[in-house]
Amino acid sequence: MRITIGDYLLQRLAELQIKHVFGVPGDYNLGFLDQIVNFNDLNWVGNCNELNAAYAADGYARINGMSALVTTFGVGELSAINGIAGAYAEYVPIVNIVGMPSTITQAQKSLVHHTLGTGDFNVFLQMFTKVTIAQAIINPQNAARQIDRVLQIGFIKKRPVYIGLPSDITYKEIEVELKPLQLAYPKSNLQAVNEAVNRTIGILTNVKKPVFLADICAVRHPMKPHILKLIEKTGIPFATMNMGKGIIDESHPLFLGNYNGDFSSEGVQQRVESSDCIISFGTILSDFNTGGFTTKLSANVTIEIHSNYVQLKHSIYPDLYFADFIPALTAGLKGIKFAEVVTEKTIPVYTATQEAIKQERFWLRMSEFLQSEDIVLAETGTSLFGSLGIKIPDKVTYICQALWGSIGYSVGSLLGATLAAPDKRVILFVGDGSFQLTAQEVSTMLRYKTKPIIFLINNDGYTIERVIHGPRMTYNDIQMWQYAKLPTMFNGAVWSTQVKTELELETAINELDKHRQELCFVEIFMDIDDVPEILRKIGIAMAEQNKYF
Amino acid sequence: MRITIGDYLLQRLAELQIKHVFGVPGDYNLGFLDQIVNFNDLNWVGNCNELNAAYAADGYARINGMSALVTTFGVGELSAINGIAGAYAEYVPIVNIVGMPSTITQAQKSLVHHTLGTGDFNVFLQMFTKVTIAQAIINPQNAARQIDRVLQIGFIKKRPVYIGLPSDITYKEIEVELKPLQLAYPKSNLQAVNEAVNRTIGILTNVKKPVFLADICAVRHPMKPHILKLIEKTGIPFATMNMGKGIIDESHPLFLGNYNGDFSSEGVQQRVESSDCIISFGTILSDFNTGGFTTKLSANVTIEIHSNYVQLKHSIYPDLYFADFIPALTAGLKGIKFAEVVTEKTIPVYTATQEAIKQERFWLRMSEFLQSEDIVLAETGTSLFGSLGIKIPDKVTYICQALWGSIGYSVGSLLGATLAAPDKRVILFVGDGSFQLTAQEVSTMLRYKTKPIIFLINNDGYTIERVIHGPRMTYNDIQMWQYAKLPTMFNGAVWSTQVKTELELETAINELDKHRQELCFVEIFMDIDDVPEILRKIGIAMAEQNKYF
Repeated sequence: MRITIGDYLLQRLAELQIKHVFGVPGDYNLGFLDQIVNFNDLNWVGNCNELNAAYAADGYARINGMSALVTTFGVGELSAINGIAGAYAEYVPIVNIVGMPSTITQAQKSLVHHTLGTGDFNVFLQMFTKVTIAQAIINPQNAARQIDRVLQIGFIKKRPVYIGLPSDITYKEIEVELKPLQLAYPKSNLQAVNEAVNRTIGILTNVKKPVFLADICAVRHPMKPHILKLIEKTGIPFATMNMGKGIIDESHPLFLGNYNGDFSSEGVQQRVESSDCIISFGTILSDFNTGGFTTKLSANVTIEIHSNYVQLKHSIYPDLYFADFIPALTAGLKGIKFAEVVTEKTIPVYTATQEAIKQERFWLRMSEFLQSEDIVLAETGTSLFGSLGIKIPDKVTYICQALWGSIGYSVGSLLGATLAAPDKRVILFVGDGSFQLTAQEVSTMLRYKTKPIIFLINNDGYTIERVIHGPRMTYNDIQMWQYAKLPTMFNGAVWSTQVKTELELETAINELDKHRQELCFVEIFMDIDDVPEILRKIGIAMAEQNKYF
Repeated sequence: MRITIGDYLLQRLAELQIKHVFGVPGDYNLGFLDQIVNFNDLNWVGNCNELNAAYAADGYARINGMSALVTTFGVGELSAINGIAGAYAEYVPIVNIVGMPSTITQAQKSLVHHTLGTGDFNVFLQMFTKVTIAQAIINPQNAARQIDRVLQIGFIKKRPVYIGLPSDITYKEIEVELKPLQLAYPKSNLQAVNEAVNRTIGILTNVKKPVFLADICAVRHPMKPHILKLIEKTGIPFATMNMGKGIIDESHPLFLGNYNGDFSSEGVQQRVESSDCIISFGTILSDFNTGGFTTKLSANVTIEIHSNYVQLKHSIYPDLYFADFIPALTAGLKGIKFAEVVTEKTIPVYTATQEAIKQERFWLRMSEFLQSEDIVLAETGTSLFGSLGIKIPDKVTYICQALWGSIGYSVGSLLGATLAAPDKRVILFVGDGSFQLTAQEVSTMLRYKTKPIIFLINNDGYTIERVIHGPRMTYNDIQMWQYAKLPTMFNGAVWSTQVKTELELETAINELDKHRQELCFVEIFMDIDDVPEILRKIGIAMAEQNKYF
């Protein structure tokens, strides 16, 4: 069949279950935007700026599996690059499409707007090779092959890809035989699987207190059902790391808690670290994910199962995919059944008082507020570290950006998450400092009639920085906004309130149910010096890590 | 003397007349921020986000000569990179300082936050090599030499430079002999100057209608007095290109107007294009600067004088600096005196009516509103193209970003300009679409008690895109905000109003004088289809240049 290149690309995006395309118009992409608007199964989402759009695409992909972003050449793509870099670091597949000047303009090295004035039209692509896993500049000869190639790589490796689309190319017609896009994972060498599985079974046969640890890459790849089967067949308890929080229901009788090294909640650290065999799934051992490098996961007791390799004690099995390994391990395990009982953690009973809202009590209350199936986003800062400790209900999707940690991320990401899951309750926890970076994207949420619940913690500044260094230095201060008035000013269906005491918080929570057809914005005042305990510990660890003098 | 590396760098910034440092805190730069806060001659300006901070640094440097920006590793610097790229394209020297993880963290390839998780700590520096003219990662051995080197290059070439400062380096002491930073331009070969000057004089002796054209690089380098002397000695009339607007007073009897090729205002095109000798200073012949490539500047009649070379007909004199060439030409010219009379353009008399405000009439009114010594910023869009045609009073500094053209730029840039010129009236013209990208930086203007006048043109969407393509397509629409309420919500000293008719505009203008101690925000409603004539022409040219199909 004959199809325009733009429509071919959009067809492939639709096959990847993408229903919304994020971005900002610019004259080099307007022709392609027409194609998006006219494409039946896709919706254009115009963001306030490109960084916010990239964050939205990231949030969308974390729920939907994959996402797409369209920006214009130079100015647009460079505004978005921090968001793409975050997606690269945290294994989020975004199809990053850049509208480029026409092939004629490029061939003539014309001195057009949105260039550096050097006649070099590849300079931005070169930057993106550092933060995308595959790249292609499309022309009529390579279009179908290159589009398929980069989309496949992005899907399989769960990382962003770059597609450059010159303005005069997108309406060129190509002849294609439209077969479904091949998205199968590569297959592991069966003998390697057997060897690794048998060695693992051998180890498991001789240990007494094994434990599972699930993390980010097991979330990104659809490993949850495989891991759940393995847990249930073996009776081995499991913990999650920060970026894997919520992968398996936290009400599961074998759930230990969140493992954060020395900063873990009660019991979890002792159980994990006393284990004689730790089997981890898709871990990233970054500072914010390991309690500032205090996790103890020595190679002597740890078997690391990653998306594309297995490390078994001191040997590595390259190209051994966990999609093959985990089911094979489950199938191979016969007669091994641990009978551990995980002590149910008693959650303190929360009764609202007339007192001002404190961090510890707030997160306790939120633990109760959250419902099954909610999507929860926690900004890097008090929100991330405060929410880590709470027990979330079953089937909650928990989104944080603990490795890249770009503040402001969660506001853009919230937009993407709400559009990817229109029927779910999507809840954001964000601090005032972070909110200021990307605040205008609340207007895009209103424009597209999304209805998230935003809890903005107003504690007057960059709290995560204050606990690391300079608690009273002016650089950690920010301008005090009338935050609760902001969403109203953006127009649209909004309900907004401010709370200072626990009783006021109760009133606000009771009101929320009456406003499910509106975007709800709750500004919560907390003391400038009040921080979650784990954040205080992280602050000390980071101050040591940075050692200014 | 012994001095810490951080203080040495700050001392050099102070020598460059930098008084404000822009940026956002992040844990890798907090130690250095302490040094800034404690340094007598520098003020820290905390921005809402890093892109806005980069724009602010750009605006500051355009007024002050040079500026400094501090961000944190990875997330911070990549958020700012679009602003740095714009400064690179448009010859604006910004010292881009990045707080990096400690040297120990880097040597251990630790998996710390704000990295891609690959252990590569040079990846962001590599990106910045594309958009900065010199780079250095500081260590105690190279500190003084490398800091001086990159600052000198940035100052002389008028382009941003990159300084990477690991967190544990900034307090290390070094022994230096503190001589003033050498900032002298390199000297041209005297014989080359003489040859090029004599050839130019030879040409001027034999022509009848020469003309001067001044542009961006003559503004960035302090060429104004040299060009003015040359104009006055020769009696040759001059025009400016868009990015050179205002370099010489527009009330000068030899000022022709703004030359924009086929889109020039009346008379200017005819006079420039009928010239038998065009001598240009620091031109960049980009699409938005040349009426969509319609200027006629053939090598047969044009002598191009650039910052570091001269093109005389078909020959190039490399490393011939206009700082040497222009004074030498002026001195060498004896007995050549043209006696041209430039016809004074009659500006239509403006009398406010009860009618709605239209683009053409608005810019006419603004021409009258502007005062000598004002600083005017015009966002790329209706503001840039609408304001180009107006005659600005003497000594007005006119700021636009016509090559890079990143929308939202002007709001951040405004903050920088107001801080660089606290005693001047600083006026911004910005459209609603552009404003949404960077709106929160108005809060930073309030935080630091600046008092700009912001004219926001609310015409419901991305007008510059509408005139290029898709005038009624949804992707050119934006969410309608209550713009006039926004600054109040940010708190601080604000006066804000909305106007729809010419008489209401008069009332607002009269009020402005009463509110000189406040930030003034005037939201002006204009029709969605009303655009400055020159923008309509640019739209047609860009649609042709992009030729989607």
